[in-house]
Amino acid sequence: MPPAFLPVALEHATRLLNHGPTVLVTSAHDGRRNVMAAAWSMPVEFTPPRIAVVIDKHTFTRRLVTAAGGFGICVPGAALADLVYAVGSESGAEGDKFARHGIVAAEGPVLGLPMIEHGCAAWLECRLIREPHVEQAYDTCFGEVVAAAADPRVFTGGKWQFRQDNGGLLALHHLGAGRFVTTGPEVVAKGAA
Amino acid sequence: MPPAFLPVALEHATRLLNHGPTVLVTSAHDGRRNVMAAAWSMPVEFTPPRIAVVIDKHTFTRRLVTAAGGFGICVPGAALADLVYAVGSESGAEGDKFARHGIVAAEGPVLGLPMIEHGCAAWLECRLIREPHVEQAYDTCFGEVVAAAADPRVFTGGKWQFRQDNGGLLALHHLGAGRFVTTGPEVVAKGAA
Repeated sequence: MPPAFLPVALEHATRLLNHGPTVLVTSAHDGRRNVMAAAWSMPVEFTPPRIAVVIDKHTFTRRLVTAAGGFGICVPGAALADLVYAVGSESGAEGDKFARHGIVAAEGPVLGLPMIEHGCAAWLECRLIREPHVEQAYDTCFGEVVAAAADPRVFTGGKWQFRQDNGGLLALHHLGAGRFVTTGPEVVAKGAA
Repeated sequence: MPPAFLPVALEHATRLLNHGPTVLVTSAHDGRRNVMAAAWSMPVEFTPPRIAVVIDKHTFTRRLVTAAGGFGICVPGAALADLVYAVGSESGAEGDKFARHGIVAAEGPVLGLPMIEHGCAAWLECRLIREPHVEQAYDTCFGEVVAAAADPRVFTGGKWQFRQDNGGLLALHHLGAGRFVTTGPEVVAKGAA
């Protein structure tokens, strides 16, 4: 059994995305739910913790996110590469991807959105900040993080602790067309604390 | 001598940021120029190629970008970790960081902005798309890529070709406080081309 996820303090929440990983976007509304892959996300503010993620306006996820007023961001471990590519290539309008792929989801503590822990390194539950113009023009959705949690084997004390001997939980960075790179060695800059 | 940068077709430009690297943002206006580090950027659209980057409204870079109507995004190689951290910790209002650090800049072909090639893997020259509300509310600046180029040792034929024996040009992903991780091994998802 992997250890249980532990809460991440909101002031550390943006660090979960700071390194630019490919993520899974989860959503649920009115008895339907979905999960898609997104390579395009970033933090935008530390306090309050806010992020932006690109969700195409033609996707089923976008419909659920808009209706529910929130979304989940799950940071998949490298062992989930096949799953990330699969859920990024299918539409959830045609069937529940959680059921199809046997994905178990926990319930987010604030908004009740589906949060994936098994195989993931962390998740962030986000309230959608409505910005109709940028949602329309750039498919860019802003969200405020209302809860976050992580696997203590890779994120503890507010910091990532990537280790090559914990390869299944390293980050995925999408190069395109199903090609990813994972997390490599750490480099500490001169003068850094 | 490293090989000269080669132009990247605009339809491939977003791939230069798809993996979520930490970047350098360059700017110039009216005889002043600057370079800062930014961990928070992402593509938002393939065609036309558009990106978003977070540039704090209190920075000298933001002033130059707004005045010039454009910015450069340079993707530093791992060998530049110390420089990335240094230019991310200083203000360009107090002196020219290019001169202080001996950074040589080429001139962007469309907007004439400073583009860093030596030690970098790629650059994108971007025209600012004015969005005053999101610039103010989220420090998020949208830009359209008008030119791009890359070092053919790591990006060729529209694709990244990261190799561990080319370590100085691997990407940097900022974990926070001067700690970075570099590019690790490639993983190809099942079913990918």
